[in-house]
Amino acid sequence: MNAAQAMTASGDGGWLAIAGLGPGDAALVTPEVSAVLAEATDVIGYIPYVARITPRDGLTLHASDNRVELDRAGLALQLAAQGRRVVVVSSGDPGVFAMAAAVFEALEAGPAIWRDLDIRVLPGITAMLAAAARAGAPLGHDFCAINLSDNLKPWALIEKRLRLAAEADFAMAFYNPRSKARPEGFARVLEVLRAACGDDRPVLFARAVTTPEEQLRIVPLGEARAEMADMRTMVIVGSSLTRIIARSAGPILYTPRSVVEVPA
Amino acid sequence: MNAAQAMTASGDGGWLAIAGLGPGDAALVTPEVSAVLAEATDVIGYIPYVARITPRDGLTLHASDNRVELDRAGLALQLAAQGRRVVVVSSGDPGVFAMAAAVFEALEAGPAIWRDLDIRVLPGITAMLAAAARAGAPLGHDFCAINLSDNLKPWALIEKRLRLAAEADFAMAFYNPRSKARPEGFARVLEVLRAACGDDRPVLFARAVTTPEEQLRIVPLGEARAEMADMRTMVIVGSSLTRIIARSAGPILYTPRSVVEVPA
Repeated sequence: MNAAQAMTASGDGGWLAIAGLGPGDAALVTPEVSAVLAEATDVIGYIPYVARITPRDGLTLHASDNRVELDRAGLALQLAAQGRRVVVVSSGDPGVFAMAAAVFEALEAGPAIWRDLDIRVLPGITAMLAAAARAGAPLGHDFCAINLSDNLKPWALIEKRLRLAAEADFAMAFYNPRSKARPEGFARVLEVLRAACGDDRPVLFARAVTTPEEQLRIVPLGEARAEMADMRTMVIVGSSLTRIIARSAGPILYTPRSVVEVPA
Repeated sequence: MNAAQAMTASGDGGWLAIAGLGPGDAALVTPEVSAVLAEATDVIGYIPYVARITPRDGLTLHASDNRVELDRAGLALQLAAQGRRVVVVSSGDPGVFAMAAAVFEALEAGPAIWRDLDIRVLPGITAMLAAAARAGAPLGHDFCAINLSDNLKPWALIEKRLRLAAEADFAMAFYNPRSKARPEGFARVLEVLRAACGDDRPVLFARAVTTPEEQLRIVPLGEARAEMADMRTMVIVGSSLTRIIARSAGPILYTPRSVVEVPA
């Protein structure tokens, strides 16, 4: 029994699904997510993600601004506790720098009765995997994913993780590279990486992947500039083994599966 | 135009799609992948993944054993060059420890004409995100993904990455934790992690997620045993902030979005 069937089978009881809409293209929304959206009475999320849901009779759309994740999570839990069938939508995957953790923070801090709710997380195609697929396979070997926003963590921790990730020779996928509130942060990230990885390491800037505004750009780290990223851009920095295959149809960026020697 | 449409539009020309089937449940196969499978003349992959494809007239299924990834990639490229419509299938996402990197290795080493082929990677729900969703949101903050198989890399590199990932306080997702060829490796991984992270860190063993054989188990690192994993198990080790919410319906494992201080 999949999640949609399980939720339908719960009859009149409320439920809460925390669902990933994927990076943008409707062909990347899983059938599981489409099925719960078809059963929902309420959809809750950040304005541009709720805008992707087709309105219909019996469905209330609750769109809210950025940075109110805990308010949104509390509303979702309240409505489910009232017997509504609620879907919280994130772009990409809800478990990767998105709403699932916020809902569980609200659940843990909230009334005990919320712990009896039927809550499920429905995965989606996260931005780094969509971006990687468009460019080739840069995450084909060991890698890490780091949220570069310092809204919720100290900047010193971001720099520490960058240095250790470079020492581990992980490929690195960066979410939220460049915020309006802290545009200088990403320039500092590029400095730290150049010092650790040198100027030749390939960097992918993948903007708005799978949408009509998609733009891909691969540059060596020495030529990477903060202005190449905005909040719709996913940045992937290769490991020491990440390679480019030149083609007339555009380059392929990939990381081979094999490592022969431990990198220095 | 999505990938399936683009491929259909290419008319009589061959093409190659490297597609992810997700973790097992058909409701997690993207419509994009279903569309290219409907247009394919040939499906190529590891035996249990090809077994997930419904046979039909006009479709040839090429199932092969494990550890022949480069042979499989070469066959796919040859068939596409002959004008066939070829789908290489992986479970999960093809770009994460799967066939996409193998195809690009074969492409780079092969005849120049292969570089003119229409090749696309179609993402899927990778095992770590499916497992994380089933358990809650353990990858809700910065994390890394490590393939524990030492078929293709030195064991010393695996241990180095484990130590650095622990120092960076990443949550960690482990693919291929326990191979038949090297069963003692995962016991050593657990030792290294206990030394670096202590005994209390929560560990998720998620076996065969989204299939009828699904089993989830969360234990503290001090109680984790190598026998709890097999080759169908995804292992996720929390960061220092990963928490458990107790519920009658089963625990929720999640990593909050916020870090107040840099961990020691």
